[in-house]
Amino acid sequence: VLYFVGLGLTDEKDVTMKGYEAIKNSKYVYLEAYTSILMINQSKLEEYYEKEFILADREFVESNSDEMIKQAKDDDVAFCVVGDPFGATTHTDLFIRCTEMGVTVKAIHNASIINAVGVTGLQLYRFGEIISIPFFTENWRPYSFAEKMQFNLARGLHTLCLLDIKVKEPTEESLCFKYKEYMPPRFMSVSTAVDQLLEAAKENGYECYNEETKC
Amino acid sequence: VLYFVGLGLTDEKDVTMKGYEAIKNSKYVYLEAYTSILMINQSKLEEYYEKEFILADREFVESNSDEMIKQAKDDDVAFCVVGDPFGATTHTDLFIRCTEMGVTVKAIHNASIINAVGVTGLQLYRFGEIISIPFFTENWRPYSFAEKMQFNLARGLHTLCLLDIKVKEPTEESLCFKYKEYMPPRFMSVSTAVDQLLEAAKENGYECYNEETKC
Repeated sequence: VLYFVGLGLTDEKDVTMKGYEAIKNSKYVYLEAYTSILMINQSKLEEYYEKEFILADREFVESNSDEMIKQAKDDDVAFCVVGDPFGATTHTDLFIRCTEMGVTVKAIHNASIINAVGVTGLQLYRFGEIISIPFFTENWRPYSFAEKMQFNLARGLHTLCLLDIKVKEPTEESLCFKYKEYMPPRFMSVSTAVDQLLEAAKENGYECYNEETKC
Repeated sequence: VLYFVGLGLTDEKDVTMKGYEAIKNSKYVYLEAYTSILMINQSKLEEYYEKEFILADREFVESNSDEMIKQAKDDDVAFCVVGDPFGATTHTDLFIRCTEMGVTVKAIHNASIINAVGVTGLQLYRFGEIISIPFFTENWRPYSFAEKMQFNLARGLHTLCLLDIKVKEPTEESLCFKYKEYMPPRFMSVSTAVDQLLEAAKENGYECYNEETKC
């Protein structure tokens, strides 16, 4: 069995009892940690569970996960994901490949920022489409997220904005020359997100929000 | 401290380690169980935690919770909610009253149907506003949920439909005569929800969905 275990949002104690048992009873434990980040590091997890966690980065999940699926044919394997396993990123592709290879998948759910945002006091029923704000580059400044926010605001709905994380991104040079070199990790700040939202609104002539809007 | 503990969606093992500890260490443990239902009953929870759970129904949460808040001034108290504590129903009012009475509140998040629906394979980023479908009565047939669904469909967005639960609802007679009598619990079936969606679309002339629409 391959267990998709949600780790929750903050630390090693946010896992569920069910997830804890799955991790403890698994022969191999993988940690998916490129779409989101826990507030603690891997060694803390390993200490708590008394288990070795194998880091599953983007390359692993997208290209090298067949090995993991094969292991799950004979043994219990835990694939741990920050938040909920089908939250921030759907791991649907992995799920489908498991099914095709005759491996059972069991999802163990947990909190995701998508529901935990309710702690702000805003009604979850009044959120519209979620937006992702990617880092602008010199030549790549997509504004589609602003259109969605404009739309939500016009309907009186809240918008959850997910800010870009760049971890283990290849440099442009390394992509051209086919060797591996990674950029340092970057995490978008709220002020960068706001700057990009304002730029997008200005460029597209949106009027639902501007410098005076409270959030 | 008053701990708002999310119990997750299915059984006693869906609580987080953090939530488990809060429940075990609390002097009083309340179970809020009118907005949603666990797949197990209270006695199973009590057995697992070796604790007495005090049932906090709608009347309690809306009218009689001051006693609980007072207890949390001196002792640890756990207020357990199916799903996430700020998910299906925001307990914001309770939160505010605690703050006013000088009681610290700590939220312990968990999965909610709002994020766990990702297990279907549908991208959570592509959901629009959530709708609640209430039981129609002879004289009360509100159609506003259908307008929201029409709107989501027109934008190519999925819609999460929450179906009505009626637990401990007073009968109409008992409301008139000021004595307490409750109707038997009712849980809306998917086919009832679909019937009501179709009726609402027909009455309002919506064309985004009809008898042929797949879901």
